[in-house]
Amino acid sequence: MPANPQTLLRDLGENALLRRILPLLPPGRHVAVGPGDDCAVVRLPGSPTDLLYTTDAVIERRHFPAWRDCAPSGVTPAMIGRKALARTLSDIAAMGGTPLHALVDLVAPADLPVPFALGLFRGMRTLAHQHAVGIIGGDTAEGPALELHLTAVGTVPRRRAILRSGARPGDILYVTGRLGASWRPGNKKHYTFLPRLAEGRFLLPWATSMMDLSDGLSTDLPRLLDASRAGAALDFESIPLSPAARRTPDPLASALADGEDFELLFTIPEKKQPAFARAWRAAFPRLPATPIGRILADPAARPLPPGGWQHFRS
Amino acid sequence: MPANPQTLLRDLGENALLRRILPLLPPGRHVAVGPGDDCAVVRLPGSPTDLLYTTDAVIERRHFPAWRDCAPSGVTPAMIGRKALARTLSDIAAMGGTPLHALVDLVAPADLPVPFALGLFRGMRTLAHQHAVGIIGGDTAEGPALELHLTAVGTVPRRRAILRSGARPGDILYVTGRLGASWRPGNKKHYTFLPRLAEGRFLLPWATSMMDLSDGLSTDLPRLLDASRAGAALDFESIPLSPAARRTPDPLASALADGEDFELLFTIPEKKQPAFARAWRAAFPRLPATPIGRILADPAARPLPPGGWQHFRS
Repeated sequence: MPANPQTLLRDLGENALLRRILPLLPPGRHVAVGPGDDCAVVRLPGSPTDLLYTTDAVIERRHFPAWRDCAPSGVTPAMIGRKALARTLSDIAAMGGTPLHALVDLVAPADLPVPFALGLFRGMRTLAHQHAVGIIGGDTAEGPALELHLTAVGTVPRRRAILRSGARPGDILYVTGRLGASWRPGNKKHYTFLPRLAEGRFLLPWATSMMDLSDGLSTDLPRLLDASRAGAALDFESIPLSPAARRTPDPLASALADGEDFELLFTIPEKKQPAFARAWRAAFPRLPATPIGRILADPAARPLPPGGWQHFRS
Repeated sequence: MPANPQTLLRDLGENALLRRILPLLPPGRHVAVGPGDDCAVVRLPGSPTDLLYTTDAVIERRHFPAWRDCAPSGVTPAMIGRKALARTLSDIAAMGGTPLHALVDLVAPADLPVPFALGLFRGMRTLAHQHAVGIIGGDTAEGPALELHLTAVGTVPRRRAILRSGARPGDILYVTGRLGASWRPGNKKHYTFLPRLAEGRFLLPWATSMMDLSDGLSTDLPRLLDASRAGAALDFESIPLSPAARRTPDPLASALADGEDFELLFTIPEKKQPAFARAWRAAFPRLPATPIGRILADPAARPLPPGGWQHFRS
């Protein structure tokens, strides 16, 4: 269908735009998993590990306040830089991978103070050190809004990456941590969240499918179900609510739709569930992994109305 | 030296900003060449090839007209998409590498027409097909200006990448093609240029150093000389001028400072020069490779005043 020249991105929304873009992307060689999962997976001939690639951007007024409003809001440049890198590390975690390298494109207005720009990189550096990630390249350019564009590279044992497409009927749906209100006033979790890298690697022998929760369970679960050509039933009472979500007027809606949780959503075969629960508690005694529902064979079984965040439709 | 909180990016300029950022970047594992060359070079244990990584952005009103002015200026969305990818392929060419994959971050205002957005990807696809490059991932986000952020991944035989740092006293400086006026009115070369990929690979056994000319010879040659801790003498009369540069009031200044030539600048040991010249003409009969000067041992021998394009100082 040719695109109507009158249709604007705001009429279409991000999801429909991506459905139009994906068929235009040339597939390339050595690509085990192309666009549509948390990372692309590249399998070079003779390499013992697969390579993982992901990109993500944080943009002024979308993912953090206008830079002049940051100081009054208690947001430091380091928090912004940290968030930008952490989002891509969360994508690597969602494949069961280990991050190795990142590249950074900075776009900034010419009237940005130099210490603010350097603070962005200090925030990235602190997180990069914690995960032995090298920042190996990038670019700087002038533009009207402050933006950081991150590309992260990781590795995962050959053929072992956990995809969105592997959920099977009967599998149990899990989430790590507690959901909701990550960016609501007074909560800074969308800056300070810990990319679930150790947890993602731990899940390599357990999970049949996995993704990270960036746009909210109500937006992200359908993506996992679409990729797995499956449906699901949710036990809404079991969805773990963050303390900040509990303080909102509608805690469940906050947990489902606010987004920026950066927790892992994954599936475990029912037979493995008791052993998995024991192994998880032993490995991560302070981080809950909560069963919240079950995968169903019928792809039409969708427990949630569409919701969550979409670019161009704010 | 702590950054003065009153200093703005426009006071510092891109080059000085990069000198402040580079020490903040964590080095990481398996990095053969970090930030500062055309690409980063990664050498994974046991891999027969090195990996090349580069990022680059094209931004509305900087690298192409405001999107509403594109049609009246004869600039199509496909030309913009093509340019964005071609710039990163030129970086891969400048290492002697072969591009394999790219990732694309699109930033766009919500009132961008959908066909314009899709046209960007059609332009990338055409060039990607020509070089068997897969577009394997990316992201879309809303922002005030139209931008494409590209990351390209390439390969080069292990330990064979041609760096900026390899020029030696006595080497002959060469450029491919003809320089200048790439973006001047009536010239579309900055959209239509051919990334010199075959030429870059041909140079693997010949060149001691190489980079691509993105910001103009007067800005880029000092970068090669800094990396090689060397100086140079230029024969200004021999610098090959593009037909468009010849139509400007000062053709040599245009060739030196306009930028966006995306030709290769490289060095050949003097002893190899006759054999190189024959081999080049046989391989690329329609593309000149012109000797324009010589590398000198004295790093203070700089044939050009600083010039060319710098972000934040326009």
